Amino acid sequence: MDLKLYLKEKKEAVDGFLRDYIASKKNRRDCPADLCDAMGYALMAGGKRIRPILSIAAYEAVGGTSGNILPVASSLELIHTYSLIHDDLPAMDNDDFRRNKPTTHRVFGEAAAILAGDALLTDAFNIISHAEAPAAILIDVIRELSYACGPEGLVGGQSLDLILEGRKAEKSEVEYIHTRKTGALIRTSVRIGALMAGAPQAELGYLTEYGEKIGLAFQITDDILDVTGTMEELGKSTGADDARGKNTYPSAFGLKESREIAERLVNDAVRAVENLNKKAEPLSDSEIAKYILSRRN
Amino acid sequence: MDLKLYLKEKKEAVDGFLRDYIASKKNRRDCPADLCDAMGYALMAGGKRIRPILSIAAYEAVGGTSGNILPVASSLELIHTYSLIHDDLPAMDNDDFRRNKPTTHRVFGEAAAILAGDALLTDAFNIISHAEAPAAILIDVIRELSYACGPEGLVGGQSLDLILEGRKAEKSEVEYIHTRKTGALIRTSVRIGALMAGAPQAELGYLTEYGEKIGLAFQITDDILDVTGTMEELGKSTGADDARGKNTYPSAFGLKESREIAERLVNDAVRAVENLNKKAEPLSDSEIAKYILSRRN
Repeated sequence: MDLKLYLKEKKEAVDGFLRDYIASKKNRRDCPADLCDAMGYALMAGGKRIRPILSIAAYEAVGGTSGNILPVASSLELIHTYSLIHDDLPAMDNDDFRRNKPTTHRVFGEAAAILAGDALLTDAFNIISHAEAPAAILIDVIRELSYACGPEGLVGGQSLDLILEGRKAEKSEVEYIHTRKTGALIRTSVRIGALMAGAPQAELGYLTEYGEKIGLAFQITDDILDVTGTMEELGKSTGADDARGKNTYPSAFGLKESREIAERLVNDAVRAVENLNKKAEPLSDSEIAKYILSRRN
Repeated sequence: MDLKLYLKEKKEAVDGFLRDYIASKKNRRDCPADLCDAMGYALMAGGKRIRPILSIAAYEAVGGTSGNILPVASSLELIHTYSLIHDDLPAMDNDDFRRNKPTTHRVFGEAAAILAGDALLTDAFNIISHAEAPAAILIDVIRELSYACGPEGLVGGQSLDLILEGRKAEKSEVEYIHTRKTGALIRTSVRIGALMAGAPQAELGYLTEYGEKIGLAFQITDDILDVTGTMEELGKSTGADDARGKNTYPSAFGLKESREIAERLVNDAVRAVENLNKKAEPLSDSEIAKYILSRRN
């Protein structure tokens, strides 16, 4: 199986959905043009679409076949994008660049950035509510997603991350932050794919473990890249975590142990989905996992 | 019927639900304490709970009887509170006081206020997803609510309001802003009550008209109070709209005509629900409507 081609095809499908989403919003003219522009700018700024791709791959891994997964998977990118817009705000991480482009608030102003984030978060749930699937499944998806990106998930992780800035956190606190700030949404992306396909409990269990470990490995790799990467590769400033006194895996565990933890997590993740059938190849041949570990941005 | 008692009872039920929501969140200790505190501060700052009450009244007006409406109705207050927290931010309306108390960002800082808003918005959908009702109805509710508070609704209205600040807007633009900034969520609160009760199409229609007109009247009254009220009555600074060059009904239509428009809207609203049965009394005897018009804060 050609994983590069697989990732490219899925990314194009997601990009297509998101492009249509913004275009039809602009056409209907019921959303103020400036707001639509800010939403579209952030959404189409060149994201890797890892979360939607993981969701689609999990869906296919447990036998899902219809195209119904696309809107739901794409909505995960709205959530991810909203969280980046808000995280980059001056009152939060105060980042000027993201993916080699000025951040949303640098282009459209802070108020527009706050509102664009709010709008994307809200619209994610609207998109899911329109998906063609049994209502009971969609409610499961919404329950799952709203928990993963709420105060016990993504927002909670981001909150503790800011609270502990400049103060040496316990290792358990660093783990709390990481499993939630990034891990929760990635774990849920995988689970939502499985839920949409109506996966039996055992398969959902394997995929949950996969998502959990991949999610944490993803954030640890992010931390490592912030230390070892260049601004050109990352498209945003590096060394920012250290300058801000952020509690990262490298700061808590050291660079070497962080690398080992991430590798171990990825190996465990791959093993967790070995029991799934051939369709799980994009997950189980460890290509996506390796991609996460070896990525440069 | 004693409307004052009715409003008091419903408000207490909603307050109770919200108090339990925050308390159980704190007890579970899975949400960072500071984030929980900021959410609770804003949520329990003395809101009138108009949206949940309207939702419950609409539910009862079309024969809904179970307590299942309470979580869904209360979730509307999470949405309303999130929108106030974000609107008060320095980059937005930059308000220091709300309901005679310092605004959330004045007490907890900007980052915590942004995150508390994000968390409340997200949790609103989580609460609905846990409500005891057929999944198909809950999906209708989520579709409705996410549209009403998304970029074509609440966020869109707030966005255009900020974009047009300091510039004289067309009357149609003022109408756009008002029907969305406040009107959309109130309209939807009424409709969600009806949806939760499984109201037939005709009754949903009456209630939709009611909610639409009440919602617009509510915002016009807000504008009028900003001109005529005192800070003590309102619990926030007055004359702020004018100082900011906001496009309000008084600025577009004059104070006298604004009052007439609001009264006409309320009369029309009351007429719209005259066809409903006795249980619609809290809506149809115009008491809630009058309360909206004559309120001092």
